[in-house]
Amino acid sequence: MSTELTPQMQVVRWEQGACVLLDQTKIPNKEVYLTCRTHSEVVLAIQSLSVRGAPAIGIAGAYACVLAMQRAFTENKTASFLEDAFNEVRNARPTAVNLNWAVGRMQRKWLSGAPISLELIELFLSEAKEIHREDIECNQRISRFGAAELPEKGAVLTCCNTGDLATGGVGTAFGVIREGYAQGKITHVYVCETRPVLQGLRLTTFELQKNGIPYTVICDNMAATLMQQKKVQSVITGADRIAKNGDSANKIGTYSLAVLANFHKIPFFVAAPFSTFDLTIESGADIPIENRDPEEVLSILGTNLPDYKISVFNPAFDVAPHSLITAVISDKGSIRPPNKESVHRVISKSML
Amino acid sequence: MSTELTPQMQVVRWEQGACVLLDQTKIPNKEVYLTCRTHSEVVLAIQSLSVRGAPAIGIAGAYACVLAMQRAFTENKTASFLEDAFNEVRNARPTAVNLNWAVGRMQRKWLSGAPISLELIELFLSEAKEIHREDIECNQRISRFGAAELPEKGAVLTCCNTGDLATGGVGTAFGVIREGYAQGKITHVYVCETRPVLQGLRLTTFELQKNGIPYTVICDNMAATLMQQKKVQSVITGADRIAKNGDSANKIGTYSLAVLANFHKIPFFVAAPFSTFDLTIESGADIPIENRDPEEVLSILGTNLPDYKISVFNPAFDVAPHSLITAVISDKGSIRPPNKESVHRVISKSML
Repeated sequence: MSTELTPQMQVVRWEQGACVLLDQTKIPNKEVYLTCRTHSEVVLAIQSLSVRGAPAIGIAGAYACVLAMQRAFTENKTASFLEDAFNEVRNARPTAVNLNWAVGRMQRKWLSGAPISLELIELFLSEAKEIHREDIECNQRISRFGAAELPEKGAVLTCCNTGDLATGGVGTAFGVIREGYAQGKITHVYVCETRPVLQGLRLTTFELQKNGIPYTVICDNMAATLMQQKKVQSVITGADRIAKNGDSANKIGTYSLAVLANFHKIPFFVAAPFSTFDLTIESGADIPIENRDPEEVLSILGTNLPDYKISVFNPAFDVAPHSLITAVISDKGSIRPPNKESVHRVISKSML
Repeated sequence: MSTELTPQMQVVRWEQGACVLLDQTKIPNKEVYLTCRTHSEVVLAIQSLSVRGAPAIGIAGAYACVLAMQRAFTENKTASFLEDAFNEVRNARPTAVNLNWAVGRMQRKWLSGAPISLELIELFLSEAKEIHREDIECNQRISRFGAAELPEKGAVLTCCNTGDLATGGVGTAFGVIREGYAQGKITHVYVCETRPVLQGLRLTTFELQKNGIPYTVICDNMAATLMQQKKVQSVITGADRIAKNGDSANKIGTYSLAVLANFHKIPFFVAAPFSTFDLTIESGADIPIENRDPEEVLSILGTNLPDYKISVFNPAFDVAPHSLITAVISDKGSIRPPNKESVHRVISKSML
C-alpha cells in the first residue's frame, strides 16, 4: 500500500486577492497563468476552457464568488449585483453540476440581507479554500477506493483529463490511476486523445509524464481495437454530473467507451466526488448537455479549409447509463453496481 | 428508381503516357494533380495517401504496372526489373487486398518469358483501363444492391471516404448513399471525421457537398451518442479486405461502429467490390494491419508541442467480425448475413 497521494500542481489558487488559473489551452507546450480579478474573468476562463474539469471549475467558481463579494464591498454594490454575479458563475457551463454545487455552498454563507463586510469576504474566502481542501481529500479517498476495485493487474484505458489539472489536486480517475500504478495493479495507461479539445493528448499525457507512468495515446476510434486485442483490462473515467440512478454524464466519448467495455466484458469505472451527484434528478435524461462551437472541431483543418460551410454536431458530453457502469467510485466509497437503490443507500448514510 | 449513377470526378487517370492522380492530401482546399511517370512515383503517392481508398489504389497500382512496362521497354530492362517493380507496387501498402489483386491481374497478361514489346505495353494499358472501367460498373451494381438493403427511411452514418475519391468512380458505401438519397430512403448523412487523417471531414464532406446531400460531421467519439439519441438508422462503410468468413478490415474506427451499431440494434453494412474478398484467408485474424507514423496523430498539436516524446499507437485499419455485419454488399449481390457458408455460395457461383 502506498502513502497518501499529494497534488503535484495547483491549477487554481488564491493569490493576493485574485484567482490565479493555469491556462490549460496552452498545455503541454507552455505553462501560462491567468490572474482573474473579477468573477466575470473567471467565467470567461471557464467558458474558454482555460480551466476545465468538473471539480476544478467548481473550485474556480467558488473563488469567483469571493471576487464578486470583494467587488461588492469595495464598490458598494447592492445585493442584486451579488445575486447576478452568482448566477453568472453558476451558469458559466451547463453540464457539470459542481459549479452549481460550489456556488450554492458559497451562497449559503451569505444569509440574505447580511451586510456586505470585510468579515463576509473573509468568510467567503475561507469557504472557497475549504471547498478546495475538501476536494483534494475527496480525491485521496477516491484514489484508494478506486485502486481496490481495479483488476489484479493490467493496462487501463482513460479519456479526457481527470488529474491535478481537472481538480483541486490528485485527481479523480487519474488519482485511481496513480494509486493503482503505485500499488502495481496498473502496468500501462492508454489515453484517448479526446477530440475535439484533446484533453487526453495534451493534458493527460502531461500528467502521466510528470508521474513517470508509462502510457500510449490513441485516437478515440482506436479504443475498440485495443479491447478486441485484449490490450486493456479496465476503463476508468471521471464524471461531470451523476443522476440519482447512477447514470453519469462525462466528456463526449465516454458513453462509447462504456458500450465497448460492456461488449468486451471489461469493467468500466466512473470516479467522481460525491458532490458530482445531482440529487434533484432521477436519471441521465435530465442532464443538460452543452453543445459547443463547431470551430472546436473544424480548427483541425488549419488552412486546409474548403469553400463550403461544413455542418458540425459538437456535444461536449454524453451520458453513460448506470447499467453499463461497473462501479461509481466516490469519496464515500465504491457504489458497485450503481443504481437507484445503491445510490440511495449512500445518500441516506451521508445525511445521517 | 433513379437512373444509373455516374462518376463526378476521376481521381486516377491515364494521360499522355503518365498516371495522373488527384492529390487527396490537399482536399478540400485545393485540387492539385500529380503526374506520375514511374511506378515508384505511384508507390510514393499511395504511401503518402495522395491516392487512397482500396479500389482507387488498386487502379493506381494497375497503371503503375503499365509505367513499369513502359520503362522496361524504353530502357531495355530485364524481366527481373519488372518483377521487382510489380512487387514494389504490390507491397506499397499491406492491408487493402485490391492492390495485390490488381497487380496479380496485370501480371497474368505478361506470360513469363514473353518479350517486352510495344504490344505488351498496349495490352497492359488496356487491362488497367478495363480494371478501372469494371470498378465503376461494380460500384453501380453495389449502389443498387445496397440501396435495396437500407431501412425504409432515415439517416445513415459513415466513416472515412468511399466515393469517387476512393474508387474508380461512383463509390462503394458512398455509391449506396447516393443511390439511397436519390431513392428517398436516406434523409441525412452523418460523417465521422475519421482521425487521424480526416478522410471523413476532408473528403466525404467534399463529395457530399458536390452531390448536394445534407450532412453533418461528428468527431469519431460522438457516434455512440448519435445512436443513443436515435439520430441514425443505419451504418455503412467500405472495406479494404474481406476474409472468406466475412470478417472485414476497414479504416480504423469501423470495428467500433460495428460494435456500437450492434448494441443499438441498427444495421451495419459493408460495401465493397467482390475483388475485396481475399480467398486465401479464412478469417480476419489473418489480415495484416498497417501501423502508420505517430506523426499522423501528433501533427494535430501544431506548434503546441510538449518537451517530452508522446508514445502513440496508430493502426490504420481494424477488423469487424462477420457476426457484427448485417450484410456485405458486393457487386455480386448482398451477402446477408455474411458467414463462411454465405460467402462460399457467392464464390462458387462466381466461379461458374
